[in-house]
Amino acid sequence: MAAKVNNPAELFAAALEGNRAALARLLSLIERGGPDARAVGRLAYPLSGEGYTVGLTGAPGAGKSTLTSATISHLRSLELEVAVLAIDPSSPFTGGAILGDRVRMQDHATDPGVFIRSMATRGHLGGLSLATPEAVRLLDAIGRRWILVETVGVGQVEVEIAGKADTTVVVVNPGWGDSVQANKAGLMEIADVFVINKSDRAGADQTRRDLEGMLDLSDLAHSAWRPPIIATVGTTGQGVPELWEAVLAHREHATSSGQLSERRTFRMSEELREIVAERLRERARQLCTGERWEELTRSVIDHVVDPWSAADEMLAPVEA
Amino acid sequence: MAAKVNNPAELFAAALEGNRAALARLLSLIERGGPDARAVGRLAYPLSGEGYTVGLTGAPGAGKSTLTSATISHLRSLELEVAVLAIDPSSPFTGGAILGDRVRMQDHATDPGVFIRSMATRGHLGGLSLATPEAVRLLDAIGRRWILVETVGVGQVEVEIAGKADTTVVVVNPGWGDSVQANKAGLMEIADVFVINKSDRAGADQTRRDLEGMLDLSDLAHSAWRPPIIATVGTTGQGVPELWEAVLAHREHATSSGQLSERRTFRMSEELREIVAERLRERARQLCTGERWEELTRSVIDHVVDPWSAADEMLAPVEA
Repeated sequence: MAAKVNNPAELFAAALEGNRAALARLLSLIERGGPDARAVGRLAYPLSGEGYTVGLTGAPGAGKSTLTSATISHLRSLELEVAVLAIDPSSPFTGGAILGDRVRMQDHATDPGVFIRSMATRGHLGGLSLATPEAVRLLDAIGRRWILVETVGVGQVEVEIAGKADTTVVVVNPGWGDSVQANKAGLMEIADVFVINKSDRAGADQTRRDLEGMLDLSDLAHSAWRPPIIATVGTTGQGVPELWEAVLAHREHATSSGQLSERRTFRMSEELREIVAERLRERARQLCTGERWEELTRSVIDHVVDPWSAADEMLAPVEA
Repeated sequence: MAAKVNNPAELFAAALEGNRAALARLLSLIERGGPDARAVGRLAYPLSGEGYTVGLTGAPGAGKSTLTSATISHLRSLELEVAVLAIDPSSPFTGGAILGDRVRMQDHATDPGVFIRSMATRGHLGGLSLATPEAVRLLDAIGRRWILVETVGVGQVEVEIAGKADTTVVVVNPGWGDSVQANKAGLMEIADVFVINKSDRAGADQTRRDLEGMLDLSDLAHSAWRPPIIATVGTTGQGVPELWEAVLAHREHATSSGQLSERRTFRMSEELREIVAERLRERARQLCTGERWEELTRSVIDHVVDPWSAADEMLAPVEA
């Protein structure tokens, strides 16, 4: 691109030809939300559907970034291309820059087979729960077949986002069984593969027994897929090939059992519901401003109109 | 009432005549939400506006119930009638019963000048943030002039609910300055009066100095009303008359400065916005079900329609 374009269609055409700057700009548009984000979505949608997403989540400090970096190296050794989205719901903005704590991912910064991007909320109205699937579809549409979605932190939103991948990897550390703050039930529910990272530390065997015990007690005990537990050391790459084998095994299971198709259907239905809800919220914001809104509020305060009748009146245009 | 009636209008008429069982049933209707709750709201609205609400909030264990009970005793000694709403957002239901930890309020259970009621979410769609102002208006409409709203816990919702009173009392304990989990900034923002309860314990003077220091640094330092800090011992009633004097002083200030009218206007505007948003959520739930919805979702999954066009189609009836 000689001149700086911001037109979604031109950016999309450039990204399809491998222009990384254009791809980064498209992701910024998605992050920002609004009509441009929707335009990107409409362009990407018909071309998407071939990519496979792997979610990575776990408590802060579990070593997710290091593990992601080691996984990238492994995929590159297999000559696979990979895209990574690092999602940080707690951060108000990223500016598209690589976050401080993923400096080690910069090992891959000059590798054209790797694309890494951090995403934060940045005013996207539906938040990251709407922006993430849009970003995944864009990466998918431009031909990335493996998309890793790493979430930072372990709140409800993080777990939800990571849980929406085709295969979800939950990263824990030795001693995890003792920690109180981890959202264990939530993580148990979304895990397709468990990783005990930093497994060279004391307590790894106990953590494996704890996890097996929890799995025995969970609904997963008798399901067709029991999440395997893989021991890794992210800093050395130990166990990473086994982790990737486990991901591929889950993918095989999910595909042949119909789970993958079911999950994608459910996800799309949820996303659609969220898009509808978001549109209605936007509509409510439009309705609840301006002169007529202020007059009505005043009438309610003066006891001329009750609040429910006032709401009826404001909503008349959408109740047809 | 000889026969058991559930008709909002009959219940309301009975409550107006002082029937406490009818009042309790009306509050259950509000708690439950839906058309009956709205019917109660419409009946109460025209008669409300004379009551004054005092919010009480603070960390669990701060002694709010004991303090509330002591305040009730003080108001009764002044021959004032009082109604108390104890709001517990974390509890899924109350059944209208008095919660375990407010057993001591049962001292007042047989006093006709006192009405105490616990409220929990119980499926009210808009949650307690919608049910609480409705309950307050009902108590107001049937002639209760003093309404205490006590919130259990100190999360965002509790602070919001308590902060919507005409006068908000924030209860802390000696040592509060050291605690990390308290939402100090949030409490600072809503406090009209600070209470150091259990002030006979060590550290009360230090807590007062901490509070004064925080007030000096806050926006309140130069405002027309600086929240006074009252030391109390809820179990003995010590300091409670001073607390009540502080509430009355704030009320006087709020009335003469126009703050009361401003706050009520803002509150009503927020509530109206919430009612509109709730109606739209209800509309979204209606839209996102049924055969047409399933067909559209299927088309999106099959890449026949993109998600935004599908949302457009679902929303066509409300976008007119």
